[in-house]
Amino acid sequence: MSGGAFRLSELALRIGGRIEGGPDCAIRGVATLRAAGPEDLSFLTNPKYREDARASGAAAIVVAPGNEIEGRTLVVVRHPYAALADLLALFHPETPEYEGIDPRAAVDPSARIGAGVAVAPFAVVGARAVLADRVSVGPGAVVGRDCEIGEDTVLRARVVLYPRTRVGARCLVHSGAVLGADGFGFASVGGIHRKIPQVGRVVVGDDVEIGANCAVDRGAIEDTVVGTGTKIDDLVMIGHGVRVGAHSLLVAQSGIAGSTVLGERVTLAGQSGIAGHLRIGDGCTIASKSAVFEDLPAGAVVSGVPAHDHRAWRRVVAVQKRLPELRAELARLGRRLEALERRLGVELPPEE
Amino acid sequence: MSGGAFRLSELALRIGGRIEGGPDCAIRGVATLRAAGPEDLSFLTNPKYREDARASGAAAIVVAPGNEIEGRTLVVVRHPYAALADLLALFHPETPEYEGIDPRAAVDPSARIGAGVAVAPFAVVGARAVLADRVSVGPGAVVGRDCEIGEDTVLRARVVLYPRTRVGARCLVHSGAVLGADGFGFASVGGIHRKIPQVGRVVVGDDVEIGANCAVDRGAIEDTVVGTGTKIDDLVMIGHGVRVGAHSLLVAQSGIAGSTVLGERVTLAGQSGIAGHLRIGDGCTIASKSAVFEDLPAGAVVSGVPAHDHRAWRRVVAVQKRLPELRAELARLGRRLEALERRLGVELPPEE
Amino acid sequence: MSGGAFRLSELALRIGGRIEGGPDCAIRGVATLRAAGPEDLSFLTNPKYREDARASGAAAIVVAPGNEIEGRTLVVVRHPYAALADLLALFHPETPEYEGIDPRAAVDPSARIGAGVAVAPFAVVGARAVLADRVSVGPGAVVGRDCEIGEDTVLRARVVLYPRTRVGARCLVHSGAVLGADGFGFASVGGIHRKIPQVGRVVVGDDVEIGANCAVDRGAIEDTVVGTGTKIDDLVMIGHGVRVGAHSLLVAQSGIAGSTVLGERVTLAGQSGIAGHLRIGDGCTIASKSAVFEDLPAGAVVSGVPAHDHRAWRRVVAVQKRLPELRAELARLGRRLEALERRLGVELPPEE
Repeated sequence: MSGGAFRLSELALRIGGRIEGGPDCAIRGVATLRAAGPEDLSFLTNPKYREDARASGAAAIVVAPGNEIEGRTLVVVRHPYAALADLLALFHPETPEYEGIDPRAAVDPSARIGAGVAVAPFAVVGARAVLADRVSVGPGAVVGRDCEIGEDTVLRARVVLYPRTRVGARCLVHSGAVLGADGFGFASVGGIHRKIPQVGRVVVGDDVEIGANCAVDRGAIEDTVVGTGTKIDDLVMIGHGVRVGAHSLLVAQSGIAGSTVLGERVTLAGQSGIAGHLRIGDGCTIASKSAVFEDLPAGAVVSGVPAHDHRAWRRVVAVQKRLPELRAELARLGRRLEALERRLGVELPPEE
Repeated sequence: MSGGAFRLSELALRIGGRIEGGPDCAIRGVATLRAAGPEDLSFLTNPKYREDARASGAAAIVVAPGNEIEGRTLVVVRHPYAALADLLALFHPETPEYEGIDPRAAVDPSARIGAGVAVAPFAVVGARAVLADRVSVGPGAVVGRDCEIGEDTVLRARVVLYPRTRVGARCLVHSGAVLGADGFGFASVGGIHRKIPQVGRVVVGDDVEIGANCAVDRGAIEDTVVGTGTKIDDLVMIGHGVRVGAHSLLVAQSGIAGSTVLGERVTLAGQSGIAGHLRIGDGCTIASKSAVFEDLPAGAVVSGVPAHDHRAWRRVVAVQKRLPELRAELARLGRRLEALERRLGVELPPEE
Repeated sequence: MSGGAFRLSELALRIGGRIEGGPDCAIRGVATLRAAGPEDLSFLTNPKYREDARASGAAAIVVAPGNEIEGRTLVVVRHPYAALADLLALFHPETPEYEGIDPRAAVDPSARIGAGVAVAPFAVVGARAVLADRVSVGPGAVVGRDCEIGEDTVLRARVVLYPRTRVGARCLVHSGAVLGADGFGFASVGGIHRKIPQVGRVVVGDDVEIGANCAVDRGAIEDTVVGTGTKIDDLVMIGHGVRVGAHSLLVAQSGIAGSTVLGERVTLAGQSGIAGHLRIGDGCTIASKSAVFEDLPAGAVVSGVPAHDHRAWRRVVAVQKRLPELRAELARLGRRLEALERRLGVELPPEE
């Protein structure tokens, strides 16, 4: 990877960890347990990979307290995954992909452009758009008229912001994401679907990440809101008028139908969905592939279609797999009961 | 919102409603029940929000007949949601985002361009493409060679039409939608997947809306067809050779596999899917998260995986949640039966 | 379709088939069974369409051995679907959409451009990118810095390759696909999600097809890999660090969460998903709409959420539909048993 080298002790200091079970040494990069060589630092963040940790060729392994791996040099730190963030940033410093306003971009003269803004070739910045300091607009990205983008926010190639969209500071929006397309609102009268003009906006807080090819629709009348610190994976769909609370995680291919309101720190796992006009409390977790059709109190953990309590769902699923046996057992009991009834001369119930 | 003001009586007249329970007044905008202030008109279109209607600060509320909200000025109209379409159009008149052929667009000289057509910066219009009057092609959109687009159709930023795609009049295609990419057709012989050239087209009727980041694939030999008046939400996938009937609604993240034929007025709810080579009758409704694996007669309403009658599915789901209790009850009956059998000296069945 | 004509006997020879049941004749095109006219060749590749074959107006029908269709001219060939590939290529020879480096493209001077490369208007090719011979970059496509693309690979309009992405030879990437966006990796400490820099790459083998609006994320530390010959439909999501084996098929809207490793020839049907950190053996098939939550041995065929053996799942589903009847039967047995117990003076169990 990168060419720079650090002493392990220096890295341990930076991430607030301590070295155990081995000597100090030179580290030139960060690698997975399987790929790491004698000058790489690696990580054990998932107990599933303990065996890989034992067999790893890494010079040292960052672990949480309480993990002992015999014969290996460890760096013990409270949050190994967060330490990984620090170390990757150290070994792979980011350099901006684009700088300055490319003459091949189409920036409306009425747009307000901050200091240090980058606009890449073939990007479009519409009338009266406001780009705060150090915003970066990737190639082919389109910032509609009257949009506002906060400082240090990066729009990758081919992002589209429809007019009047607002994105906060320090956000990262990946390629192909579309913010502010019309919500799916039609008045269906006599079998004909008449469009309800969608005049709300999309308003995104600070420190939000939005994945590739996501679609966040503008509200019909009210705004669609994504709270500060929320992270959205690829191909996620957020309907019109939805409010996603702060610090939530929406995993790939999940979707939220119109007007639903999510509290803070909600997790939607992959391919899950929430129906429209619902209220989801703070800290809820929706398991992958599940579909929520009713309001959820704070802290609920739900699974299934329709989604209900996750532990109850697990018990249901366990029985469900044995349904054919249960049916057979039921039939057997019926026959045994009938035999008893015949023996006792009971009048049998009529066939149904 | 907008600065213009109207008399409530004038608005009531325009939407064919009558004022009840309060005086005429000035209206400056349209807002949700919760956000509306003393110069806003609001709407009750979902009974779920009755309480919000009672507490709303709106000057007046548009409702369907039979809704009484004590102490509130109402405008009673047969189809409040359709009235909303009229009123939003009134308060938020649309102005075209782009006008004329931008010199930074790449329009092939052989393309036929109607009157009043707009082509935005960095859009591409291929050889022999036909753009009828008042078509608008957004920034970065790509209209392949030999495409035909009907009058007043709007392609938003970064739409892609592959060569030979046809789109009717008055359509609206949102950013990132791709019409005409190759269908997923491979002849797999000996574990190698050989591409079947996809030489059909995508043909879209009039008055169709297609959401952000949708994918509608071209047919293998035959065309993929989307019927007039059909509305498609974001991230929907339509496979090669599919025919979607007129006036259907395909909600976000739903998908239809190749060669399936849908009748008119079919509704696919969010995240639902239909397998390939099926026939779905007119007016069917596929519940969200469901998957259809067999033909459906007209008017069917289905849920589940595999999808079956929706009411039957609801009954099944209700029992399913209680499966662990049913299993326990079955075990109890077994023990009681065995006790009786022992008491009566019945020879017990062999253990299985 | 095309204007050229061939003798049926010549076509039969080319696809290694023999004519049965009818005379030689002139063929001007290939069409579906329903659309074919008296100068068209058609195909029976799915037994579902036998009736259409009987009623078809086609001059002749290509079939696999063992299919007899009375009164029709047949061309019998071992793999009709593969023959279709040959014939469509013959009747619809592909012509490149773009040629040469368009002056309106933005190609970095440090990029290495092979012979016969096409770069369409408004495409961007970044610093040090390597485009092998005959690569085609569609309009508005973005090839990030340090990308490498193998010979004859085609990127359609608006494809995005993030920096350092590698794509093999003879690949076809459809519009809107995004390769190399950041994986979804956050260290969540105290409810705040801190980004883990994603410094791995996307590495795609040869002969891969990637559908419209797909998202293939770059790895966190390791690479995300798509094996040679694998075909990916539209709107598919591949998480960071996933390895997809060779010759696999990923159908539309399926998704694979981070770090999961798939063997060769795996099929993910439409809208299916696989959780993260799993190992899926060679030749596995995941049914549509299913979700895999555990490792699968080679050759497994699974369905359901959570996915398990497909045949077992079918049996479960059959019983499941009858759950309300089973519950009623269980209640009936309970009542009959209780009647017997009363009759025999058994002390009844306490109510629960």
